Amino acid sequence: MPTAWLISIGTELTLGQTVDTNSAWIAEQLAAHGVRCAAHMTVPDEIEYVAAAIRRAAEASDLVVISGGLGPTEDDLTRAALARATDDSLTIDTSSLEHIRAFFEKRGRVMPEANRTQALVPSRARAIANPCGTAPGITLHLGQTPCYALPGVPFEMKAMFTDAVLPALRAASGGRVVRTRLVHCCGIGEAELGERIHDLMQRGGSPEVGTTAALGIISVRINATTASVDKADRMLDKTEALVRERLGVAVFGRDRDSLASVVGEQLRARDATLSTAESCTGGLIGAQLTDVPGSSDYFLGGVISYANEVKRDLLDVDESILLEHGAVCDGVAHAMARGVRRKFGSTYALSVTGIAGPGGGSDAKPVGLVYIGLASPQRIHVIERRFGSAAPRSVIRTGAAIAALNLLRLELVK
Amino acid sequence: MPTAWLISIGTELTLGQTVDTNSAWIAEQLAAHGVRCAAHMTVPDEIEYVAAAIRRAAEASDLVVISGGLGPTEDDLTRAALARATDDSLTIDTSSLEHIRAFFEKRGRVMPEANRTQALVPSRARAIANPCGTAPGITLHLGQTPCYALPGVPFEMKAMFTDAVLPALRAASGGRVVRTRLVHCCGIGEAELGERIHDLMQRGGSPEVGTTAALGIISVRINATTASVDKADRMLDKTEALVRERLGVAVFGRDRDSLASVVGEQLRARDATLSTAESCTGGLIGAQLTDVPGSSDYFLGGVISYANEVKRDLLDVDESILLEHGAVCDGVAHAMARGVRRKFGSTYALSVTGIAGPGGGSDAKPVGLVYIGLASPQRIHVIERRFGSAAPRSVIRTGAAIAALNLLRLELVK
Repeated sequence: MPTAWLISIGTELTLGQTVDTNSAWIAEQLAAHGVRCAAHMTVPDEIEYVAAAIRRAAEASDLVVISGGLGPTEDDLTRAALARATDDSLTIDTSSLEHIRAFFEKRGRVMPEANRTQALVPSRARAIANPCGTAPGITLHLGQTPCYALPGVPFEMKAMFTDAVLPALRAASGGRVVRTRLVHCCGIGEAELGERIHDLMQRGGSPEVGTTAALGIISVRINATTASVDKADRMLDKTEALVRERLGVAVFGRDRDSLASVVGEQLRARDATLSTAESCTGGLIGAQLTDVPGSSDYFLGGVISYANEVKRDLLDVDESILLEHGAVCDGVAHAMARGVRRKFGSTYALSVTGIAGPGGGSDAKPVGLVYIGLASPQRIHVIERRFGSAAPRSVIRTGAAIAALNLLRLELVK
Repeated sequence: MPTAWLISIGTELTLGQTVDTNSAWIAEQLAAHGVRCAAHMTVPDEIEYVAAAIRRAAEASDLVVISGGLGPTEDDLTRAALARATDDSLTIDTSSLEHIRAFFEKRGRVMPEANRTQALVPSRARAIANPCGTAPGITLHLGQTPCYALPGVPFEMKAMFTDAVLPALRAASGGRVVRTRLVHCCGIGEAELGERIHDLMQRGGSPEVGTTAALGIISVRINATTASVDKADRMLDKTEALVRERLGVAVFGRDRDSLASVVGEQLRARDATLSTAESCTGGLIGAQLTDVPGSSDYFLGGVISYANEVKRDLLDVDESILLEHGAVCDGVAHAMARGVRRKFGSTYALSVTGIAGPGGGSDAKPVGLVYIGLASPQRIHVIERRFGSAAPRSVIRTGAAIAALNLLRLELVK
């Protein structure tokens, strides 16, 4: 099977000021086309490092994909590094220069002189058109190995990868495919899950099975490598069925499903609607729900009731509960769910109130304590979760949002 | 200056199913302690790849930090790869085993047999205690190079890095420091920004100046490498002052400041409060605001008015505007901002309505069209933004949330 190395370029990446999300996206695309990523390398904006990484990657693999370092400023060195790695010099690509000029003209502006640099390519390379921005990409061969350099801006990179790199891959793949399936689970520990599918995870198994845990969601990853898509998919189907049998209701979806998209499908199938009342999650559940295209079919909206007065005035939470027990208790979660369901006239309603920290905790009510309410046509139900007082604010908030969506999911699959 | 290589382990990373956020965090910590990351490597869960990456990293650098592959399942191979890279064998570390047992006991559970594996370490290595979970870390020397292997779960990794790796770094740094400052900007293009600080960005300058763009925010990165923290900070202060002079009101903050935290500080300083009415952003602005600890001091909450009925019933948006002009127009943004400000009694209110796509666009109102309203004590003001109909849903939503917070920021700095 052909292998690829990915190179991400940027001092902001090696210094850790930006998280590299491009490599994951590119790797996923390559895997789906039968190319296995053997490594990602991240190097700073220093020409020697970049040129050395390009040379090493081209030696070690069958394909090199580079992202970043094609912008218009002084520290964008990918063009020069490609020229150095191939002992070439840079020349202006006139059609790229025209494209950049037109890009600015269309927006009623004159091209800043700095953007001229973006039309430079090594003399033996070809430019790749950028439909979304000013930076063209570059493609060339280093020895026998094709290299593609794309901009670091994710949506530009994705458009150009799809337009220019994928067709070349398809032509070169020689029929070998790797297909991957993810089976996502919620409400089960990683070790327990691992024990239940222990036999499927043996080394050298085919398909390969592995697991990944992230913030309350554990994904079982199944990879099949074989001669045809059909055959690979049959292998994946069979193993997925086994995994589902072992893990039961903990499985909520596969591949690109998110908890929010799955809950959305369930609601849509029942012609049901949802509203939310969020305190410590502050809009996170709404943001996750509306991240799904078409969510207006079932999500009516919600109230972010951060202040106690909002809980009282908009959600009819009884002031006496707030005074007596504080905002973080079973009774407030109950009243918030009831209040928002009534106000919005939705079929279901979710509520969350908790202590996200780092301040505001006490012995009786530590940081990480969260109450989650679910109002359905039949009843109102509240659960308590403790995320641990050492957990960071973001872990507690995301964990609470996931637990809330999972509570609704379990109610809907009943 | 000492250099480090980071290795992230996991097929879910090389296949692109998970984004590696650990490397960025570790690199940032190292940079602050005078260790420059020369590269990040990401390799799959295959023992030969992992062992080879460890050997290569130890040869190329002065310090190796590894994350991932220490879980309890079959595909967690970092322990075995460390043993292979050092020609050693694995033995049970009894104090780690005790810790793992106690972890489960405290939670009223019996340790699953699978977790026993996590107590294995190469015989010449030392275990690193994990205060938050079951997987201990491992430290050993490969030749002269110290290597630290930590779990992949971010909050466990961070706690162990801080407890075990940082003190060793401080002892070994020999007084050389790298200090970094980020100056964050909003509402200016990258090329224009680059031209205004062109002279500061020359190669070989000291301090080094570079830029990074991400979703409407451009950050100027200033790195100073010198003999003392004080001296480095004076260099940073001087360059930061120059950058601010050139970029004016586009600069909104530095280092860990976010738009939400800066707006929050401005509101707190004026004893002012804020509420939000979100349609296409669906809670994203609320989620960003409440990501900031202490945001309850100024953020009262908001209404996620996804459905038109919610805009009408909770925010008093005139039904006739909705019928005549649709939900995405100047007038609805205006009415939403007015409505939520009245309802919550806040000093300021932000509203957003737009077309996040991929469906729902037309020639007159394309995907990416967003109206943002700001109600202040003096007036209500609406701006229009076009994010481009090719932009993905997440780019439009995040861009709209940033533009809304920036609109309020500019009002508050007036």
